[in-house]
Amino acid sequence: MENLLSDRIKQTPPSFIRSILKTAADPEIISFAGGLPNPISFPQEDLLLSMERIVKTYGSKCFQYSITAGLPELRQYIAERYNKKFGLNLNFENVLITTGSQQALDLIGKIFLNKNDGVILEKPSYLGAIQAFSQYQPKFYQIELTQDGMNTEELEKTLQNNNIKFIYAIPDFQNPTGLSYSEKTRQEIRDILKDRDIVLIEDDPYGDLRFDGVRLPYIGAGKLKNSILMGTFSKTVTPGMRTGFIISENAEILKNISLAKEASDLHSNIFSQYLIWDYLTHNDIEEHISKITALYKEQSGAMLNAMERYFPKEIKYTTPHGGMFLWVTLPEGVSSVEMFPKALEKKVVYVPGDPFYVGLKDVNAMRLNYTNADSKTIEEGIKRLGKLLEDVI
Amino acid sequence: MENLLSDRIKQTPPSFIRSILKTAADPEIISFAGGLPNPISFPQEDLLLSMERIVKTYGSKCFQYSITAGLPELRQYIAERYNKKFGLNLNFENVLITTGSQQALDLIGKIFLNKNDGVILEKPSYLGAIQAFSQYQPKFYQIELTQDGMNTEELEKTLQNNNIKFIYAIPDFQNPTGLSYSEKTRQEIRDILKDRDIVLIEDDPYGDLRFDGVRLPYIGAGKLKNSILMGTFSKTVTPGMRTGFIISENAEILKNISLAKEASDLHSNIFSQYLIWDYLTHNDIEEHISKITALYKEQSGAMLNAMERYFPKEIKYTTPHGGMFLWVTLPEGVSSVEMFPKALEKKVVYVPGDPFYVGLKDVNAMRLNYTNADSKTIEEGIKRLGKLLEDVI
Repeated sequence: MENLLSDRIKQTPPSFIRSILKTAADPEIISFAGGLPNPISFPQEDLLLSMERIVKTYGSKCFQYSITAGLPELRQYIAERYNKKFGLNLNFENVLITTGSQQALDLIGKIFLNKNDGVILEKPSYLGAIQAFSQYQPKFYQIELTQDGMNTEELEKTLQNNNIKFIYAIPDFQNPTGLSYSEKTRQEIRDILKDRDIVLIEDDPYGDLRFDGVRLPYIGAGKLKNSILMGTFSKTVTPGMRTGFIISENAEILKNISLAKEASDLHSNIFSQYLIWDYLTHNDIEEHISKITALYKEQSGAMLNAMERYFPKEIKYTTPHGGMFLWVTLPEGVSSVEMFPKALEKKVVYVPGDPFYVGLKDVNAMRLNYTNADSKTIEEGIKRLGKLLEDVI
Repeated sequence: MENLLSDRIKQTPPSFIRSILKTAADPEIISFAGGLPNPISFPQEDLLLSMERIVKTYGSKCFQYSITAGLPELRQYIAERYNKKFGLNLNFENVLITTGSQQALDLIGKIFLNKNDGVILEKPSYLGAIQAFSQYQPKFYQIELTQDGMNTEELEKTLQNNNIKFIYAIPDFQNPTGLSYSEKTRQEIRDILKDRDIVLIEDDPYGDLRFDGVRLPYIGAGKLKNSILMGTFSKTVTPGMRTGFIISENAEILKNISLAKEASDLHSNIFSQYLIWDYLTHNDIEEHISKITALYKEQSGAMLNAMERYFPKEIKYTTPHGGMFLWVTLPEGVSSVEMFPKALEKKVVYVPGDPFYVGLKDVNAMRLNYTNADSKTIEEGIKRLGKLLEDVI
């Protein structure tokens, strides 16, 4: 069999998170490892009402094959929401529905990357993006992520030297760190890119989940000609329905994404598109989101308080103003991968730093998720982790 | 932009069918072009009952992230149905849910194909498969499809000469021809492949849609070690939910498909998987399918009768015993692509032969779909097409 497999698949790293999900099935384990939204974010009863309404109103259209780019009504809704919130100038043709954001990452890799093309990522970056792009065998360049976003000096230097196709960034509540880009960094990136033929991909799954501070404008959307903005309903309505989207004002990019999508899954689930559109137009989504962010503020607060109490003083961590994660930095030389079996024994799990880096091992950092456990459980989990940290450092 | 695009996407042909769907929106046009199942196949009311039941019973599980291989209950149901119908020996771990069969094609291309690897297809073959595999830049070998299936002499010769990774075949009611493989051809292919390290992909979206004759056993499933069987609920429950599946007893193949799927869309819509599983276990699917096949028998009969009446005698066509398509062969030298604008004027459309071949132009054949119009409309459409054929030949 080995000789029948493609080089591509041999070079695609399996996801640590997916393999850990099985471990985390033990009900006694407190998991900070997943990236699961809290079930409070699924408006089950209203979705059921919407189901009844769309089947009654649209009948067989909800069940038949449909167009690749997605339901025009949903795309128009998305365009208008972004126009209103961010002063953009979009119409439905600037929006393409994807089978979750993961498919958007895959399609982006597909249409841009030849083997050994350059891709710039944050350091650390989202492991699902590393996995998706790896399938196309690029050369990765990871650029240090500071408290203010990507190190722009390093970015500029990297762009001068190499055959870069695109930059992938998560400017708000970054995965895995929870950090957000400052206005200064955003402007510097715009200045660096404005005369270059390089695509900027801004992935924004968490922007709506802000519970502190003020939202800043996107870096590329509406400002750079080769700009792609990614969004999703996974964190605000339901991830199980796999409904994400790509926004771009560059028609050539969307045409090629659409062609790749046609060859990859024809179109995304049309029932879910009708459903989410109907839900959004019959309910107050901003009010729904405010319930989610109130809960996440409480949960992240519980985690930060517990870390203050139970973590040794040498341990550093980020203080997110939104999103689902925070990032813990251990003393140098302490490997979070090596610690992992001991954490499992103490019945608490996290994602070690390694999968967020390309080619690094035994990283002294870990990602913690705070959205999927109540405050008491979070405190208990951090207490267990704190004891372990005292043992190993 | 052009210089930023991958070679892969530049070599992926756009789908003729998808581009034609827009044209076919004119209500006066009679379309034999699409591959749309008849809406009778969507059990809308029973699906709505299932929706209410699963939201009530499984709650947030229907809306949360889920595992890549798919809902174990649905996979177990599929395994048992195939065991019962075909004497196979499957369990849920032999089944992996895909986002429609199109994703299965993409994932198969992804895990097996390096650039210039060989792929064997029927001649003609399904255009969506050509499109999916093209993304991985293989070398295609098309093998003549006879009334009894793939020409096995030509198959054997091709296998001796080249670096073939897999064979892609649709042995029952093939798309585009409607032809099925004889038992003799099936056995010959088994004999040819049994000692070779080559994957056989049997795509079976239409097998359940038999309205004449007797079903024959699969070629590879349960018999060849590197066998992949593809199936879907698109033709029997709903295509809009994008729920297909891959069956294989080769754990190494499924492990790699799962890894590629994880990187491509994490997992398929879990709500739809609960829904289809609940529908299947609370309703009589065989009875539901018998309603679909009764209708398709009537519709294909109407098309054949009309062709008998209205087509010039030189025109040849297949007589399908199931499925959704038949294949019309025009006199040599008559290009169905060239005829297409005139057909559009006469308000009847079909899929020209060209996209079912790799690198052929002005083919003297066309695919007709009979499942999505009533018998009267079919007769009228064939009458229009008959007049046009009289004009051009």
